[in-house]
Amino acid sequence: MILRTHYSGEIRPEMDGSEVTLAGHVHEIRDLGGICFLVLRDREGLAQVTVLTKRADRKLVETVRGVSRESVVLVRGRVKAEPKAPNGFEILPEAVEVLSRADSPLPLDPTGKVGAELDTRLDARFLDLRRPASMAVFKIESAVMRSLRNTFYEKGFIEVCTPKIVATATEGGTALFPISYFEREAFLNQSPQLYKQILMATGLDRVFEIGPIFRAEEHDTRRHLNEAISVDVEVSYADHEDVMSLLENAVSSAYRYVSEICEKELQILGVDLDIPKTPFRRITYTEALEMASESGRKSMEWGDDIDTETEHYLGSLIGEHYFLTDWPSSVKPYYTQPYEDKPEICKGFDLMHPSMELASGAQRVHDYELLISRIKEKGLNPESFEFYLKPFRYGMPPHAGWGLGLARLVQTMLGLENIRDAVLFPRDRRRLVP
Amino acid sequence: MILRTHYSGEIRPEMDGSEVTLAGHVHEIRDLGGICFLVLRDREGLAQVTVLTKRADRKLVETVRGVSRESVVLVRGRVKAEPKAPNGFEILPEAVEVLSRADSPLPLDPTGKVGAELDTRLDARFLDLRRPASMAVFKIESAVMRSLRNTFYEKGFIEVCTPKIVATATEGGTALFPISYFEREAFLNQSPQLYKQILMATGLDRVFEIGPIFRAEEHDTRRHLNEAISVDVEVSYADHEDVMSLLENAVSSAYRYVSEICEKELQILGVDLDIPKTPFRRITYTEALEMASESGRKSMEWGDDIDTETEHYLGSLIGEHYFLTDWPSSVKPYYTQPYEDKPEICKGFDLMHPSMELASGAQRVHDYELLISRIKEKGLNPESFEFYLKPFRYGMPPHAGWGLGLARLVQTMLGLENIRDAVLFPRDRRRLVP
Repeated sequence: MILRTHYSGEIRPEMDGSEVTLAGHVHEIRDLGGICFLVLRDREGLAQVTVLTKRADRKLVETVRGVSRESVVLVRGRVKAEPKAPNGFEILPEAVEVLSRADSPLPLDPTGKVGAELDTRLDARFLDLRRPASMAVFKIESAVMRSLRNTFYEKGFIEVCTPKIVATATEGGTALFPISYFEREAFLNQSPQLYKQILMATGLDRVFEIGPIFRAEEHDTRRHLNEAISVDVEVSYADHEDVMSLLENAVSSAYRYVSEICEKELQILGVDLDIPKTPFRRITYTEALEMASESGRKSMEWGDDIDTETEHYLGSLIGEHYFLTDWPSSVKPYYTQPYEDKPEICKGFDLMHPSMELASGAQRVHDYELLISRIKEKGLNPESFEFYLKPFRYGMPPHAGWGLGLARLVQTMLGLENIRDAVLFPRDRRRLVP
Repeated sequence: MILRTHYSGEIRPEMDGSEVTLAGHVHEIRDLGGICFLVLRDREGLAQVTVLTKRADRKLVETVRGVSRESVVLVRGRVKAEPKAPNGFEILPEAVEVLSRADSPLPLDPTGKVGAELDTRLDARFLDLRRPASMAVFKIESAVMRSLRNTFYEKGFIEVCTPKIVATATEGGTALFPISYFEREAFLNQSPQLYKQILMATGLDRVFEIGPIFRAEEHDTRRHLNEAISVDVEVSYADHEDVMSLLENAVSSAYRYVSEICEKELQILGVDLDIPKTPFRRITYTEALEMASESGRKSMEWGDDIDTETEHYLGSLIGEHYFLTDWPSSVKPYYTQPYEDKPEICKGFDLMHPSMELASGAQRVHDYELLISRIKEKGLNPESFEFYLKPFRYGMPPHAGWGLGLARLVQTMLGLENIRDAVLFPRDRRRLVP
């Protein structure tokens, strides 16, 4: 079939006289009597199709006048340089075919001229994504994934696919979606954590996965969803410092790649991308507590988790990406390695954007006995983790890793107010459709 | 931390005299009294560490003699060119440190010298993957994913992430895993089909996704699993011929990429890769029926699905990748476009390897009315598909696409007997752990 010869964005005034075929949605129609403009919109831009109604073929004029907004059309015609037209050219059509007619009224205005509530936009996501600003986000998200993988490939990582249907919770928590798996109960995996650690026992050494994770938490915020894409890495013979360095480079490279590849999309979004400089600032948990208490705000006890309010305060103070390190061992999961000389703090870290947490990671416990005692300390039963624990008994290298939320990375990169704007079809407490 | 300076596979006899640090599992220990060999195994090969027990440091000798097979060790020493050693070099150690001791006996012999049943290997997957032949499969699988994405990027595709938790079955079938989604019932998605089609209504035009799909079917075969990775594409302004061409190029390029990048892994597996030539042969459903009936085997009626036995017979006759095209419309799903001039056959196709089906695809129905009537013909209720059908009413371009099973592609590429050998942690009727 391959009907289209060019995207709108590929046409230049210098192509004056060339025959092209464009395909896309009818963005706008302006009928001025003697002249009728059809603005065609495709993935790469807009093109003005100009019909001189008195000179043009009668059937073509009828087609153009009869087509509804947002219908899909195929336009064959000649490029004419026209300084007054958008992007300096117009198309003088020889044939216009309607491939799919749009009903009216539209459930949503895809030109973005009429604003709409987030819920309305998500209900009619197929129309919402026709707004260049909405589509730009997902072109950028695709570029971010590509950049992240490039970082991993360059460093000798192997891509893995771990199961999403599992028998055990990662952290013994309750925030799991249960599945009926034939005659058994199973769960949707909340993180590839246990599997990527098991893979460290194989000698695969450096693995990554970009895939879905599922959390049955009931929060209703601008930065949580019940299904999300997690970017996970695990590295053998590495400590928390090594993987923090990998993480800041991956994030910074993603910004750089987007700024190079997605110039047009950033412009559409009005985003002027500052590439975060590496190394990111490191702030220990204890320093963070001091900073928070100096502010005269409510004081936190050493050993408390850092609440969202304090997180925001620190973010506004620091104003750039930073790592929160050296957490109390009691706050971080059982698989986080305590410092050998000071076991009350651990080698866990969070990567923070001023507005929210993006990633968390750690050097992991690789000693079997220590892992068992850490699991017990957390009030969990080592017997439920047998498949995970066994590999630690037969030669487990020291290792470290992290998990990064893809949508949060994109949300903070582009300054999107709600994480739902960085997910094609978000899933939350109330939303399961489309 | 970054302890290792080289992988075993990176060391050359010409590096004679250089100091290196290796890290990996103890593959073998041979203590001949005056000389003791420790063979270290890492992701890229083996290295012989030679200890002259009378001359070497006493503590080092004790460590080497005391270490158990499959423990994790760190070895610092000098490279010595040694024609009699494997790969022409040995390491004369200055320090050997045991980072993680392996219990014995091992639940599985990871050298592969002692064969083991598939179930035993999957139960102890972390040890099974230490076998170079087992690990090689997953290095190749990673390369296959990379190659597929490269094909898509080159052709202007955008990577998308569609939801895995959904409210509706793709084809109204019953082979779904139910989930308790808060107070509602939901399902694990059996295919991104409906979502990638919805995305065609947005103008994204060319999308791909490599992600998990879930099927609650009870079969117990060498080529089915209940969770699998599907490679999905959807293309606007394209017909079935366009996407068959994309598919054969993607498959052929993956073979070529693996043959270039994974030479060592192919050698380990004893696989001599024939890169399939494009274009692949096209055989219509009707031709396939004739070929099958000429064989004097049991005859099939026009309109029957092609059973596995016939599939194998055709495969043995054809002996290479081929497309099965022009299926009866009654056999293919409702979203498959019938030929305009002969609606009893449709623009659906399967990509076949001689031993099994790898992918299926089609030009899709993009006309709203036709889609409604096709859904009804299949005995399904259009009301359950409202979120999917709505986009077809507001400007849906003609489009086509396919879904390809990643593990099957790897299984057939490498001649693996069982699909479970191409999946790190397979999920089937009986297996949910590890």
